[in-house]
Amino acid sequence: MSVTASDIARAVGAELTGPGDRIVERVETTDRADKHSLVFIRNEAFIDRIMESAAGAVLIDRQTTLDKPDAAILRVDNVDLALNTVLEMLAPPGAKPEPGIHPSAVVDHSAKIGIGVHLGPHCVVGANAFIGDDTALLAQVYVGTNASLGRGCTFHPGVRFLERCSCGDGCVIHANSVVGADGFGYIPAPDGQGLLKIPQIGAVEIGHGVEIGAGTCIDRAKFGATRIGDGTKIDNLVQIAHNVQIGRACVICAQVGLSGSVRIGDGCLLGGQVGVGDNFVVANGVRLAGGSGVMGNISEPGDYIGTPARAGREAAAGMTLVHKLPHLKARIRALEKALAQQGIELKKPRT
Amino acid sequence: MSVTASDIARAVGAELTGPGDRIVERVETTDRADKHSLVFIRNEAFIDRIMESAAGAVLIDRQTTLDKPDAAILRVDNVDLALNTVLEMLAPPGAKPEPGIHPSAVVDHSAKIGIGVHLGPHCVVGANAFIGDDTALLAQVYVGTNASLGRGCTFHPGVRFLERCSCGDGCVIHANSVVGADGFGYIPAPDGQGLLKIPQIGAVEIGHGVEIGAGTCIDRAKFGATRIGDGTKIDNLVQIAHNVQIGRACVICAQVGLSGSVRIGDGCLLGGQVGVGDNFVVANGVRLAGGSGVMGNISEPGDYIGTPARAGREAAAGMTLVHKLPHLKARIRALEKALAQQGIELKKPRT
Amino acid sequence: MSVTASDIARAVGAELTGPGDRIVERVETTDRADKHSLVFIRNEAFIDRIMESAAGAVLIDRQTTLDKPDAAILRVDNVDLALNTVLEMLAPPGAKPEPGIHPSAVVDHSAKIGIGVHLGPHCVVGANAFIGDDTALLAQVYVGTNASLGRGCTFHPGVRFLERCSCGDGCVIHANSVVGADGFGYIPAPDGQGLLKIPQIGAVEIGHGVEIGAGTCIDRAKFGATRIGDGTKIDNLVQIAHNVQIGRACVICAQVGLSGSVRIGDGCLLGGQVGVGDNFVVANGVRLAGGSGVMGNISEPGDYIGTPARAGREAAAGMTLVHKLPHLKARIRALEKALAQQGIELKKPRT
Repeated sequence: MSVTASDIARAVGAELTGPGDRIVERVETTDRADKHSLVFIRNEAFIDRIMESAAGAVLIDRQTTLDKPDAAILRVDNVDLALNTVLEMLAPPGAKPEPGIHPSAVVDHSAKIGIGVHLGPHCVVGANAFIGDDTALLAQVYVGTNASLGRGCTFHPGVRFLERCSCGDGCVIHANSVVGADGFGYIPAPDGQGLLKIPQIGAVEIGHGVEIGAGTCIDRAKFGATRIGDGTKIDNLVQIAHNVQIGRACVICAQVGLSGSVRIGDGCLLGGQVGVGDNFVVANGVRLAGGSGVMGNISEPGDYIGTPARAGREAAAGMTLVHKLPHLKARIRALEKALAQQGIELKKPRT
Repeated sequence: MSVTASDIARAVGAELTGPGDRIVERVETTDRADKHSLVFIRNEAFIDRIMESAAGAVLIDRQTTLDKPDAAILRVDNVDLALNTVLEMLAPPGAKPEPGIHPSAVVDHSAKIGIGVHLGPHCVVGANAFIGDDTALLAQVYVGTNASLGRGCTFHPGVRFLERCSCGDGCVIHANSVVGADGFGYIPAPDGQGLLKIPQIGAVEIGHGVEIGAGTCIDRAKFGATRIGDGTKIDNLVQIAHNVQIGRACVICAQVGLSGSVRIGDGCLLGGQVGVGDNFVVANGVRLAGGSGVMGNISEPGDYIGTPARAGREAAAGMTLVHKLPHLKARIRALEKALAQQGIELKKPRT
Repeated sequence: MSVTASDIARAVGAELTGPGDRIVERVETTDRADKHSLVFIRNEAFIDRIMESAAGAVLIDRQTTLDKPDAAILRVDNVDLALNTVLEMLAPPGAKPEPGIHPSAVVDHSAKIGIGVHLGPHCVVGANAFIGDDTALLAQVYVGTNASLGRGCTFHPGVRFLERCSCGDGCVIHANSVVGADGFGYIPAPDGQGLLKIPQIGAVEIGHGVEIGAGTCIDRAKFGATRIGDGTKIDNLVQIAHNVQIGRACVICAQVGLSGSVRIGDGCLLGGQVGVGDNFVVANGVRLAGGSGVMGNISEPGDYIGTPARAGREAAAGMTLVHKLPHLKARIRALEKALAQQGIELKKPRT
């Protein structure tokens, strides 16, 4: 793919200075850029790297001053939004799958397949499953009995979307994710011998416009449904246990683990490897730093960090002092000794 | 599915008050319940929610007082056990797979396939593999050469059960789990150039009645076997490294990571995202809170939390003080200043 | 498989004492060993276990004194290196797959398939994909359009290697791993309604001799490529986000999570469950203890631990004091009280 700087300026509404006929073949980082690369900059902090770069085109906001001779400079209001358009312009030719059912796919005769659906090689679609119009199962996908998929969805290779689960329109599920495995619930057997499985008779209900990363697991509910709200985005290798309820437009980063019956509000951001314990409720608009562990309800929006997760600034400062604990302990000891030498007595701490 | 309150009372041995002919169609949470929903309550803490709920039936223990007019009240000794039965009564019609080998399955002629076995679409069974009676491989499952599966097992879509691994009777492995990938072992190459792979010539041996979640990985042993004891339950996205030995009736929650040669006793409970370092031994009956990191042997049963994991109460109290460290440090500083003003000298701490 | 102690001595250059005709059938741990088992010992710490073991053969370094009557003792310079050879000698007969394309594989006519390639059952190979000589896709593997695989690679069952991704020679990817899912990037929609997906138009470039565990996910780049250097080894269930750059000969243990655009130098060791935040740079030769959280750049080689990760000894000592925080707090309180009783005033700490 290649376009000219002028093409880009037109597409993103940029003010262009420098050579408008500059061919742009790719977006790159400053250190890897050449004459046919476009680099971008969101603020002045990295202006030196731009100056040193061999890049032939620069995407920059209107406020930042940049004088880079011979480069095509594209000034826009919103660099991120413009970059999205540039990436679309430079995307390799789309592999939009053709409608049709590959002869190796195994589709139950009772399944209802919409118009324009693509069922790729080695897909399996169970009894009474419903596949909405223009949805594509790319290859080796499994859709269970009575599952229901909306319109315009894309399921990547190896997705397992199990019986009675559903998703709305425009959902994307990446490779090897699993929707609808049994929830993890056991009770002690009444004879005291081992564990008794709790039946997991519910399902998973996924809204519209949800994207789910690769290798993620969303368990079916014990009863009712595990629910993912419209527009929520979930990264790779995330664990979502039975009966979890996630609101709209949340961002759930990789390797997050949500325990049984957790409720996450709307517009939350969970950083990588966050864990939330059983049944806890996280309010709308909460942002949890990567690695945080939620050990109670969080009822106010804002930034949280640590285990147990606390309001951001205070908790972050505490975490940075953990490695100073030996030093702090020594200072306490020094104080105690000094008082002892003065003959001042200390009460013995109870803990 | 639907049953009457009387049907349920009979099945679970409940004392019934209110309308025995009440139709129950589903189990629900109190906020989503309607007239045909059953809700349940384990203790008095949530009695208000029950009262406000539109639920037409309530499962409750014999000790709790509840006066909810027009609701069918079902009083039992053990709510969880009774709920299990109710869930079974309300489960959607079972999709118990029919015996038979789907024409798209690829089964080596030397494999030994028991009576009543179901091999679903696109399954692959390798040479000399053994599949016990009444076991079902649902779809797109891989069973390697010389693998051995017991009777009455269910392998969900996308399971990879690799060469020479074995499991006992009544095991369930959920979608996209991998049993028998190579252990992760390398030594520095003798020429100092990179890493040399340690051959992983062992296998995985899984006992009877083991359940393994979705997306979980259990590596084969370097030599001998990685072993999972009878009745142990493992959740989603768990990592079990080579030569790990897990006892009987353990509960291993999602995203736990057990490093090479770890030994876990019988009846242990590992919360989500727990990590255990190489070679450590965890005694019978240890319960590790979610997110804990085990950095040494644990030889006594009981509750542990934190990284490094410590006996529960003490460690949990410590963790809740981390965000107070800036404050504690300031208090130490204030003490030091006060002594300085008094002319009391402090020895400089060594760390 | 079985060999004699003399066979082993010859193969590893060992000095042999005791019965050279001793049949060795397997390597075992000391507690499970019998007469036909070989056990090994790297230092004197476990000499008692060796003495108590029923093992018929012992692999030991030349420095350690061992007098175990009737056992074949094999003395070598480097136990680990010799053990590698023994494991190879005792490995079950290799399942080296035969060249050929299984009739159930679906291979696009435009794909370029090298000499000696094995494409197992239910594999799918997309348009213009390139598969190097002697590479094996074992079963149910997906290789996307324009993907490129080097020579002598092995892809285990269920691997998804998506469009335009590439790997060098001699790579091994274990079951159900995903290479090339979309990176996880969104920006707020300009209308304030939800999130806009950032196109992920890059690829993944994997060097020579890379091994990737089971269930691992490596995302394609937003632009350019996510890169894994030659000889790097990655364990199971690892998350590698878009545009991450990993150097040569790194060891990345299970469940590690690397956020977007992270750079890891050469020869790094990341323990299990380590997390690294967006854009951080980790220098060559850094070793991160399991569970560490990197919240900034690390510019010096060495050992690090904790969250935020700090130089090892100091941080580890701090972590072991967290559970003592209630006690330290009580000691501070006791100091404050003692000064108060002396009439010494303390300034109120600001935090």
